[in-house]
Amino acid sequence: MNGAEALLRTLAGGGVEVLFTNPGTTELHLVGALESVTEVRGVLALFEGVVTGAADGYARIAGKPAATLLHLGPGFAYGLTNLHNSRRANSPVVNIVGDHATFHTAFDPPLNSDIAALAGWLRGPVRRPEDAAGAGPDAAAILAAVLEPPGQVATVVMPADVSWSDGGAAAAPAKPRTAPAVDQQVLTQIADVLRADETTALVIGGPLLREAGLLAAGRIAAATGARVLQELYSNRVERGTGLPAFPRLGFYPEQVLEQLHGVRHVIVAGTKAPISFFAYPDQPSLLVPEGARTHILAEVGQDAVAALLHLADLVAPDTAAQVTDPHRPALPTGPLTLQNWADVVAALLPERAIIIDESVSSGTALATATAGAPRHDVLMQTGGAMGDGLPLAVGAAVAAPDRPVVALVADGCVMYTATALWTQVREQLNITNVILNNQAYAILRQEWGHFSKRPGLASPDSNPLFDLANPQIDFVGLANAFGMPASRATTAEQLAEQFSQALAQPGPHLIDATIPPAA
Amino acid sequence: MNGAEALLRTLAGGGVEVLFTNPGTTELHLVGALESVTEVRGVLALFEGVVTGAADGYARIAGKPAATLLHLGPGFAYGLTNLHNSRRANSPVVNIVGDHATFHTAFDPPLNSDIAALAGWLRGPVRRPEDAAGAGPDAAAILAAVLEPPGQVATVVMPADVSWSDGGAAAAPAKPRTAPAVDQQVLTQIADVLRADETTALVIGGPLLREAGLLAAGRIAAATGARVLQELYSNRVERGTGLPAFPRLGFYPEQVLEQLHGVRHVIVAGTKAPISFFAYPDQPSLLVPEGARTHILAEVGQDAVAALLHLADLVAPDTAAQVTDPHRPALPTGPLTLQNWADVVAALLPERAIIIDESVSSGTALATATAGAPRHDVLMQTGGAMGDGLPLAVGAAVAAPDRPVVALVADGCVMYTATALWTQVREQLNITNVILNNQAYAILRQEWGHFSKRPGLASPDSNPLFDLANPQIDFVGLANAFGMPASRATTAEQLAEQFSQALAQPGPHLIDATIPPAA
Repeated sequence: MNGAEALLRTLAGGGVEVLFTNPGTTELHLVGALESVTEVRGVLALFEGVVTGAADGYARIAGKPAATLLHLGPGFAYGLTNLHNSRRANSPVVNIVGDHATFHTAFDPPLNSDIAALAGWLRGPVRRPEDAAGAGPDAAAILAAVLEPPGQVATVVMPADVSWSDGGAAAAPAKPRTAPAVDQQVLTQIADVLRADETTALVIGGPLLREAGLLAAGRIAAATGARVLQELYSNRVERGTGLPAFPRLGFYPEQVLEQLHGVRHVIVAGTKAPISFFAYPDQPSLLVPEGARTHILAEVGQDAVAALLHLADLVAPDTAAQVTDPHRPALPTGPLTLQNWADVVAALLPERAIIIDESVSSGTALATATAGAPRHDVLMQTGGAMGDGLPLAVGAAVAAPDRPVVALVADGCVMYTATALWTQVREQLNITNVILNNQAYAILRQEWGHFSKRPGLASPDSNPLFDLANPQIDFVGLANAFGMPASRATTAEQLAEQFSQALAQPGPHLIDATIPPAA
Repeated sequence: MNGAEALLRTLAGGGVEVLFTNPGTTELHLVGALESVTEVRGVLALFEGVVTGAADGYARIAGKPAATLLHLGPGFAYGLTNLHNSRRANSPVVNIVGDHATFHTAFDPPLNSDIAALAGWLRGPVRRPEDAAGAGPDAAAILAAVLEPPGQVATVVMPADVSWSDGGAAAAPAKPRTAPAVDQQVLTQIADVLRADETTALVIGGPLLREAGLLAAGRIAAATGARVLQELYSNRVERGTGLPAFPRLGFYPEQVLEQLHGVRHVIVAGTKAPISFFAYPDQPSLLVPEGARTHILAEVGQDAVAALLHLADLVAPDTAAQVTDPHRPALPTGPLTLQNWADVVAALLPERAIIIDESVSSGTALATATAGAPRHDVLMQTGGAMGDGLPLAVGAAVAAPDRPVVALVADGCVMYTATALWTQVREQLNITNVILNNQAYAILRQEWGHFSKRPGLASPDSNPLFDLANPQIDFVGLANAFGMPASRATTAEQLAEQFSQALAQPGPHLIDATIPPAA
């Protein structure tokens, strides 16, 4: 078999079932190999930022490795931004980047570039097989690497002649390492901190934000009075009825310092110690209050779930977590506001939904509104790079075709990856896209206000570079252009009706929800 | 003044007039500085691929340095692909990439990444001022670097605290180096080659594809019988009445080998020796025929125009170039075809038009059809990365608001950077976008056919991953969603009427021209 088929068969043997792609000439033999390796399904997107964001969403929901197929350095470059989000999500994603034939690169043709340099930016390993015989083993090594806890992004660069040459064979998948356990001594020390009568916060993230971890944290909170806080941006959070609902760390330094006010100990598990998202003049970056001690229960990549369960058994052997009862907001009425759109979503959220939350400055009311909704998962932008929402929805829906996906996306985020709507239609994915449309980069206006509180940095609030209203974007027309049914809501009643209808019908829908910007 | 203002004032002093941007929080003080540095105009795009492609188009038409303002590594990453095209076009583009504050990066916040690694992929220099005092000098150095012949892309990474801190001052622009002259000895040797009675080809590119170089090449051809061939993809080509019309090198190896059949000498000036765009099994990369000698008249970056003028004076002192007389195709009738859409454009092309040619597999008839049209410029994708067309049109129109811009863009290319249409409307640019809509990645079908001619690589021609018809994209609706007037043409008569109307009215327009794919 040729190198292309050897690579694909190796990935298939290691659990890869979907290849998100926007291929070009140097990848044609890999596209050809998809015809014989029927265990792997090709999903086409028309822009690489959609390919990579979809792979990320797929990996987060499927719990399986995702794969992308990208065209040389320039195609890979378009996909890097959402791979940055994947890297920050610790999603296991294998990139296959087609390159020129090994004998061709020395001539530096127009599409030639240093692909390994781009892959290096993602900090994961890179392999480049030299011949067809190397394709299988390199693919197996990269697949094992992406599955290594906590999960990462890694890359196989496939020269075109390695793909088209014979001499390949599928390699057996390597068994990925398991997450290292936390030392017993660390557990006993932190248990002692929790048993002491001192104000303590427990900051949790990563794998702890699903049922087992949340319940363990809830037990610890109930038994010891520790304040539990969730990291700000997470790859996957389980929420709703029967789970504890913990607040997230704030976005601004003063918010976090308020949340941690009076705390003597900060215990950190499955995430990093609280830091500010951006820096501001005269504000600290590290947001642990002065005088408080930080204790690392589990580093990112360690087995945080086992550690937290063990800790709960030590300090809260007979205590149950406080969990939310089923409760939903009443269906609101009147013009849409920052509060009531979230109430509509919470009131009507179906069972086992997957929420994609890229609502940015419009999303402040969402977490409280949905706390007592039926059990659901929330995927967020983890690396701060806008434009992840619509592609994450693609991947989540491919991974879980039986679950309703609700993508809540701010208008400023749509324009990076709008062609995700095309793939949603092509694959007839069950996605309800709600565009939170305030016709502005409102987050930048808000940040500007944050800066201009400081002397010497004042500037007007009305800079035209934050304004998305000239021209206004017709999101209904945009969705229709890709063949997607769409509607516009300006009142809560309209949103409720349109949201219910979209959920009741198969395939993707879009609702343009006109929301006033934050004051 | 703060570092942000010092940087902008330095760029303004060195001739930067436009800053294409999609800013974020770390760039807010640069956005603020735009309010006081009124010599620089900010142009907003909603996606970084549009920002960078527009900067490229601006630089190619304005003959002045272009500048971009981008948000951290992830925003820069989205812009890299069209910067790859800029690099291959040798366009002078200064990227300003905002970074976290110097004191903040050590905490590795979510948006943190190795921005210098991305800048390094573009091969141009990178500066990162450490304080406000360094902003002006670093900007001056980068500006001088991008203007160095043949022109390049380079980057200033601006930490947020360098932008917001006082202590900056504008630095004086450095005088860029001029292009090194070609040795007299090389000129005499190549003149001797041309005077010998041996079949010779002259391959020209880069700055030779404008009036002076084309006329000089035409004189040499007329006097010596040398075959003149243009490089395949060029940053800017002057064409039309009164200029010689030389064929471009072919895309496939066999085409180029046919063009150079029987040639004993290949003289190369302002470009590289002919190579294949992609590699194919059993085909050479270097396309100089066996036994032929290659002579480099002027390397890329040398003063190729002066060299060719000098060479023409040596071998063709009294010979005039053969130039095209005004002639245009008759306005065709009937359903649109690969030939007649180009005839419509050629028949109606206005004076001093700028054509953006991203027509890919639909554009084979364009060059011949427009050879006798009024004088115009053509900008092409230089690095092979799709999605450059609509952004190049933005930049060209910003650079030359008094010239009509005609963007000929294949449907497969639109979806990378469709939001360029939004910026076209926002800035009310005089652009007529013609989408060549064959509902396919037809170039990939064609390439697939090219591979499957070889034994052992056959595969069906109908792979769904090349198909853009499921769902069909409504380009009229897409343009309308951004507030742009648009229409659909399926016959030559409709295209002629809509093209004339679009050119007659100010502001941007879009025509969806439904073209059958190449056979």
